[in-house]
Amino acid sequence: MVDIKRLSTTQPDFWDSLDALTSWGSHPGASIEQRVAEVVEGVRTGGDAALLDYTRRFDGREADSVAALEIPTEQVVAAHEQIAPEMREALEQAAARIRDYAQRQRLESWEYQDADGNRLGQQVTALDRVGVYVPGGKAAYPSSVLMNAVPARVAGVQEIIMTVPAPGGELSPLVLAAAHVAGVDRIFTLGGAQAVAALAYGTETVPAVDKIVGPGNAYVAEAKRRVYGVVGIDMIAGPSEVLVISDGQADPEWIAMDLFSQAEHDEEAQALLVCPDFVFLDQVQAAMERLLPDMERSEIIRTSLAERGALICVRDLEEAQQVANYVAPEHLELSVAEPDRLAEGIRHAGAIFLGHYSAESLGDYCAGPNHTLPTSRTARFASPLGVYDFQKRSTTLACSPAGAAALAGTAAVMARGEGLTAHARSAEYRGQGEERSGD
Amino acid sequence: MVDIKRLSTTQPDFWDSLDALTSWGSHPGASIEQRVAEVVEGVRTGGDAALLDYTRRFDGREADSVAALEIPTEQVVAAHEQIAPEMREALEQAAARIRDYAQRQRLESWEYQDADGNRLGQQVTALDRVGVYVPGGKAAYPSSVLMNAVPARVAGVQEIIMTVPAPGGELSPLVLAAAHVAGVDRIFTLGGAQAVAALAYGTETVPAVDKIVGPGNAYVAEAKRRVYGVVGIDMIAGPSEVLVISDGQADPEWIAMDLFSQAEHDEEAQALLVCPDFVFLDQVQAAMERLLPDMERSEIIRTSLAERGALICVRDLEEAQQVANYVAPEHLELSVAEPDRLAEGIRHAGAIFLGHYSAESLGDYCAGPNHTLPTSRTARFASPLGVYDFQKRSTTLACSPAGAAALAGTAAVMARGEGLTAHARSAEYRGQGEERSGD
Repeated sequence: MVDIKRLSTTQPDFWDSLDALTSWGSHPGASIEQRVAEVVEGVRTGGDAALLDYTRRFDGREADSVAALEIPTEQVVAAHEQIAPEMREALEQAAARIRDYAQRQRLESWEYQDADGNRLGQQVTALDRVGVYVPGGKAAYPSSVLMNAVPARVAGVQEIIMTVPAPGGELSPLVLAAAHVAGVDRIFTLGGAQAVAALAYGTETVPAVDKIVGPGNAYVAEAKRRVYGVVGIDMIAGPSEVLVISDGQADPEWIAMDLFSQAEHDEEAQALLVCPDFVFLDQVQAAMERLLPDMERSEIIRTSLAERGALICVRDLEEAQQVANYVAPEHLELSVAEPDRLAEGIRHAGAIFLGHYSAESLGDYCAGPNHTLPTSRTARFASPLGVYDFQKRSTTLACSPAGAAALAGTAAVMARGEGLTAHARSAEYRGQGEERSGD
Repeated sequence: MVDIKRLSTTQPDFWDSLDALTSWGSHPGASIEQRVAEVVEGVRTGGDAALLDYTRRFDGREADSVAALEIPTEQVVAAHEQIAPEMREALEQAAARIRDYAQRQRLESWEYQDADGNRLGQQVTALDRVGVYVPGGKAAYPSSVLMNAVPARVAGVQEIIMTVPAPGGELSPLVLAAAHVAGVDRIFTLGGAQAVAALAYGTETVPAVDKIVGPGNAYVAEAKRRVYGVVGIDMIAGPSEVLVISDGQADPEWIAMDLFSQAEHDEEAQALLVCPDFVFLDQVQAAMERLLPDMERSEIIRTSLAERGALICVRDLEEAQQVANYVAPEHLELSVAEPDRLAEGIRHAGAIFLGHYSAESLGDYCAGPNHTLPTSRTARFASPLGVYDFQKRSTTLACSPAGAAALAGTAAVMARGEGLTAHARSAEYRGQGEERSGD
């Protein structure tokens, strides 16, 4: 049988077991921290020359200049023309749906007036320039390009710079085609911590951006953490996860395949099935057994399920909801007859898939919602990537003379309470000062 | 005369000078990083015992237990009753206005249906538990308590835990009163990196929170950076800044006092005045000279202006706007006759104060918009603290059988393009599978 943990909420140590299973250290260890700190500092101070040096050492690529690592537009257009027509169409359909969903997330400016005639508001603007990091080599995912670049474009970002490593010169035409569809402006074949540092600080050739988004390995993640504050970042992503709540009424093969589709990402991916019907759990395990040999990535799936997967038996769907809220999963499938009712009690999840027909993989590619989601319990406080990540707000305050007078007393009392008398005086000038103003 | 730099955009090295003046390193240096790493790890593994040890060493406070460091509710209520009535009233008025503004920022859930009958949406939920860090001692700011806790309450956060150091037992009754007004649930007299670590990981006594907000010194900032990912954080704040754009039509004393109110925060605070009228710049400098001796914090103001302040002469207001967009100031005063027109071209600023009557200090305390704002050019990508920082989104997707069929083909093509065949199969089951479902 497929090796996967079996847990039950009736066990006295259930919550401890769940905690141990779902824990994921967020720190990469001192060795990676140290190496990333050196690379980031190297690029910050050494610019293009350092970037070329690291690219030679880590990606095995020789180049005379960073300019030579930029992909010419013609090559991007050519990649788009040369990929299979059904792939081109799929990319365009996916991009259209992602764009449609993203447009509904746009933040808008607003303003209101208080009783004293002061106007208060929030002015929304787009980021100027954004960097999209795309992993290279085997894990080259065109869907990631769309999910990261399309919302930036919808937000109104002026320039999108993409970096993708091309170790040994290898570069996915699908990734280039997706960049073309998403409207990426410039692409540099750079990767690792050095690419992140170049985007954060800028070099002679790579323009500094205002925010860096996109997935990457432990070095990329640590580099993003390191430059956080110099630029914005999307998140520090851990392994991908799904938690499926099933009422036991779906085809067990559907559920088995949903768990596989999570587990096939990599050995550290996590697939959890929560169900009150233990017979159904057995049926899903049997279905896995039948289906696994046909899977191209069966070894990865096998390891992932054995190391990090679990079949969890609960007393009822309410308890399943508690488990989900504790795990705060990146992906949550509610494979139940009344998913909307169950969803109402979900407090923490990156993406919620409602009902038997809403497979995670539909959302991963083309349904519209973003697939860049908070992992490792960070859905307790973080949101999916969205248009709002490429916009920011400024508060606005326009005081009328009468309105300023109404506020000045309160401000002055509080300022004096904090020992900040210049604050108090500044407020009082406006409170008493109509005849003093040059208006 | 008051010592303050004078810059002009007509100088060939103007932008370099501006860059040098406004740069602020975001990294605290290896020594602080190392010490904070030790404290955070100490509290993570040592819990209450470590917390007591650090509190003894860093705050000079002996306590038998962490429970003894929690402020009883009665003490909080008593502080609220004992402060001066006008202060109590000011706190309540400020809280009411902050609450009113915050309510307009609430994110709401939404859903729509596509042409194939799929429902797509965004479900908004509040964070469960939030930690508010409040600095202690001299820089005890009740206004910060309101600005951090009130939006959390408006968002629907279930529990707000505040930490405030009480070095040598000293604790501001105003801070306690503000906590009462804002609806803080529990208060621990803890500070520094150890307080941040306790909130992030939890100890036997201090509950783990989902997000930590609030200002602090370099150790607190580095600790927040370090636990980012385990919990959410608001931002890594640098010194406070104001940039005033003046058309030269205000009373020079008003502008001088606005610059003072920034400079009095601390020696590293930054006050910049940008104006096309160099005679007015002289008048403001003369006003500073007259007003400075009366200021209680005149030495801090003098140092701040000399080290980090500037009077900047520009060709016209359009150029002033360019300067502001480059600096991306935390606070931006548009002390001009037509501030709305000028604001339209502002792309980056934390808070915008429109017109001669909108002094920053009114916004700092009680106008309504939050005073926790992005500093050090981070307004290029970050927003003021708001209700939205205490809410998060989950995407939702409910596929109809027909809708799933419409998406399955696209998803499968893309999944195969990425070599993820379980994803493809999972999508295809839904595309063909009405008779296979248990629905």
